[in-house]
Amino acid sequence: MKKPLFAALLLLAISSATAALAAEKNNIAWDIVADLTTEIGPRLAGSPAEARARDWAKERLTALGFSNVAIEPFTIRGYVRGEDKAALTAPYPQPLAITALGYSGTTTTKGIEGELVYFPTFDSLKAVPDGVLKGKIAFVDHAMKPTQDGSGYGPYGNVRRQGPGIAAQKGAIGIVIRSIGTDSHRNPHTGATDFPEGVKAIPAGAVSNPDADQIARVATSGKPMRLSLTLTGQTKDKLPSGNVIGELPGRDPSLPMILVGCHLDSWDLGTGAIDDASGCAIVTAAALRAQQGSKTLRTIRVFWAGSEELGGFGGDAYAQTHGEEPHALAMESDFGADRIWKVQMSFAKTNQALTGRIAAALNPLGVIAPGGEGHAGTDVQAIIKKQDLPFVSLGQDGTHYFDLHHTPDDTLDKVDPAAMEHNVQVWTEVLKIVANEAGPIKGE
Amino acid sequence: MKKPLFAALLLLAISSATAALAAEKNNIAWDIVADLTTEIGPRLAGSPAEARARDWAKERLTALGFSNVAIEPFTIRGYVRGEDKAALTAPYPQPLAITALGYSGTTTTKGIEGELVYFPTFDSLKAVPDGVLKGKIAFVDHAMKPTQDGSGYGPYGNVRRQGPGIAAQKGAIGIVIRSIGTDSHRNPHTGATDFPEGVKAIPAGAVSNPDADQIARVATSGKPMRLSLTLTGQTKDKLPSGNVIGELPGRDPSLPMILVGCHLDSWDLGTGAIDDASGCAIVTAAALRAQQGSKTLRTIRVFWAGSEELGGFGGDAYAQTHGEEPHALAMESDFGADRIWKVQMSFAKTNQALTGRIAAALNPLGVIAPGGEGHAGTDVQAIIKKQDLPFVSLGQDGTHYFDLHHTPDDTLDKVDPAAMEHNVQVWTEVLKIVANEAGPIKGE
Repeated sequence: MKKPLFAALLLLAISSATAALAAEKNNIAWDIVADLTTEIGPRLAGSPAEARARDWAKERLTALGFSNVAIEPFTIRGYVRGEDKAALTAPYPQPLAITALGYSGTTTTKGIEGELVYFPTFDSLKAVPDGVLKGKIAFVDHAMKPTQDGSGYGPYGNVRRQGPGIAAQKGAIGIVIRSIGTDSHRNPHTGATDFPEGVKAIPAGAVSNPDADQIARVATSGKPMRLSLTLTGQTKDKLPSGNVIGELPGRDPSLPMILVGCHLDSWDLGTGAIDDASGCAIVTAAALRAQQGSKTLRTIRVFWAGSEELGGFGGDAYAQTHGEEPHALAMESDFGADRIWKVQMSFAKTNQALTGRIAAALNPLGVIAPGGEGHAGTDVQAIIKKQDLPFVSLGQDGTHYFDLHHTPDDTLDKVDPAAMEHNVQVWTEVLKIVANEAGPIKGE
Repeated sequence: MKKPLFAALLLLAISSATAALAAEKNNIAWDIVADLTTEIGPRLAGSPAEARARDWAKERLTALGFSNVAIEPFTIRGYVRGEDKAALTAPYPQPLAITALGYSGTTTTKGIEGELVYFPTFDSLKAVPDGVLKGKIAFVDHAMKPTQDGSGYGPYGNVRRQGPGIAAQKGAIGIVIRSIGTDSHRNPHTGATDFPEGVKAIPAGAVSNPDADQIARVATSGKPMRLSLTLTGQTKDKLPSGNVIGELPGRDPSLPMILVGCHLDSWDLGTGAIDDASGCAIVTAAALRAQQGSKTLRTIRVFWAGSEELGGFGGDAYAQTHGEEPHALAMESDFGADRIWKVQMSFAKTNQALTGRIAAALNPLGVIAPGGEGHAGTDVQAIIKKQDLPFVSLGQDGTHYFDLHHTPDDTLDKVDPAAMEHNVQVWTEVLKIVANEAGPIKGE
């Protein structure tokens, strides 16, 4: 067969997803998410894929017309995934869908096997005396439910963040938790855990919600449960990571700049479409759109952070490298691509005039200003703290965010182009105001 | 810590799923699905788990009061899953979520690697001359869309059933297809394929829909694609399987019986909740309910088939074993647990009186009688053919069925207890009529 026939077949194509992509081809934000997830895909902090993503980001930002585009390397203590496997072995043998948590302890390829002790809540794990779990594996149930603002992730996320350390201190040889997620698919949610200083890491994994339901049902039978657990991933020091920055210079370079952040790294199970390719897409497209027609007064710097997922290392590195440069305000997009429903401003009390102008500009876009400070964003937190910067928090609808967060299902098809465009519109309105504001953002 | 504290913790529990379970505790159908999926789980045809499921089924049917409960063994040519792994290696390296198809050819643990040739449709694969794919791996796109009656599974399912054999005949060293499924999760859909006599099996797998979208996007870039593929599962002869039957004797055992079928085996990725634990639950609960208060005139036999998924071997074995016993009618439930929306009867033209009575009984339950024969069911097809039996087809809503079918996501949480109860009600109405019908079901 000749080449032309293949080409014709290709033209015949194409799935609806690809058609949707084509329809959006002139959309800067969509292209960033589509191309980053397609051409790089999963980009775990410290991995070769994250390095490829930095090169990709530099090339894309340069092509889009950003100035001073730079990769700023740093090294991290990271986690390299191995084989993840678990099964109930008694009373009812059955495989479980599991993922290792970042910084999990390591098993051999043969795994470990032990009695599985059921804890319905995080508190019940915390309540047992030290040593009780000696030689056993803990299972912590505790189902997070969806909320629009994602506020369940704080308290329920602690099961993942602190649970393994607590189980280790109580003598457990391993721990499995119900995924910190709100879906009901066999896709477990990964994420970093943290063992306290001096506590030896134990193998720590999360099973999907249907698998956690399964364990809960078996637990109610009262029969002793046993689990086999194989998590061969390893924590490694001095892995290469880095940030990528680029600028759209303002009319007055002497004025402190506006910093807009997101993160370039992703968990390795999915392709990081909603977490956080879409964040980088939104802030970058909005920065460009805010300058369409005429430059803004202040310089806008985009900051695509590395190694957010493993502990916000990119944000720390940024604050160290750029801590002496004048910033006027920092913002971040790192909560998916669903519509923005609220705006919160840290300067609401000190600069009511600016607060009012921003709220008024967003009101026609369906965005409310309920008061309160909101959350600035992991990657801009360190520079905000260092320079006591003001920030604007644009709250996205997180009702479905934790269906996908840190799972294999974080892929391009989950991004709604219309909702992402709404984000770009809202961000553009805010940037047009703050980047053209001559006075101090905080007021006097 | 003492036992009582653990018990107290257990009481504190319990996830919503478990609560839902508790609320349904007196429901025969729900218990069958919950217990079979919890206590046995995945039960691939020919596996030790399928054997445990037969013992479980015998025990359960006996406990429910069925007579003549029997396991009827036979052997099959089956498929034993190995490691399933795939990745695009060029132009953009990225892992893919894949599952081997049943009867796939086998790779070593190192896998194969080769050029990936994109075919947008099944027809475009069929159109290429023999030998063109020599040394290459074929990818067939071709997305099935949801339909209420599931009718897309016929034509689109042929990509899975026949595609690998065709690719092998054209010289391919492997084939990957878009999953025959309507969801957008990273859970690929498995299922049996079939290599024609004399054609050597090649490694054959299905990627999830988001992964197929990914391949389609890369294909449009025009850059040559390469794929690595590891599918180490093996086809094995003489694996043990078997059917399980049980009876509710009628008032007149001399009359031909009513046969109600389902299948006990499941694919191995999920726990076979909708395919087909719920079918067995529905027919069994309905048979018992039809006899509540007073016995039906005719005997009702429940038939939980083995090895449906790999080719309907249980149905063939049943027809061989019981082909000389008098049957009056056969029916099957094997399309999930969503609501029944239509009834079709093979005897609509020859017994209008009975057809009318059945349609009238189901009308208040929201079930329409649109005419046509419908589908009898894989497991009862052989006995229907052998004895030229009439059948009733109760059509379930299949809009979401192929979101879950043959995936890891076929788990208990996907069963809606209210919809399953609707199935039991409809089945009960039909069984009350046909099992109390003294005359020939087909009419004169």
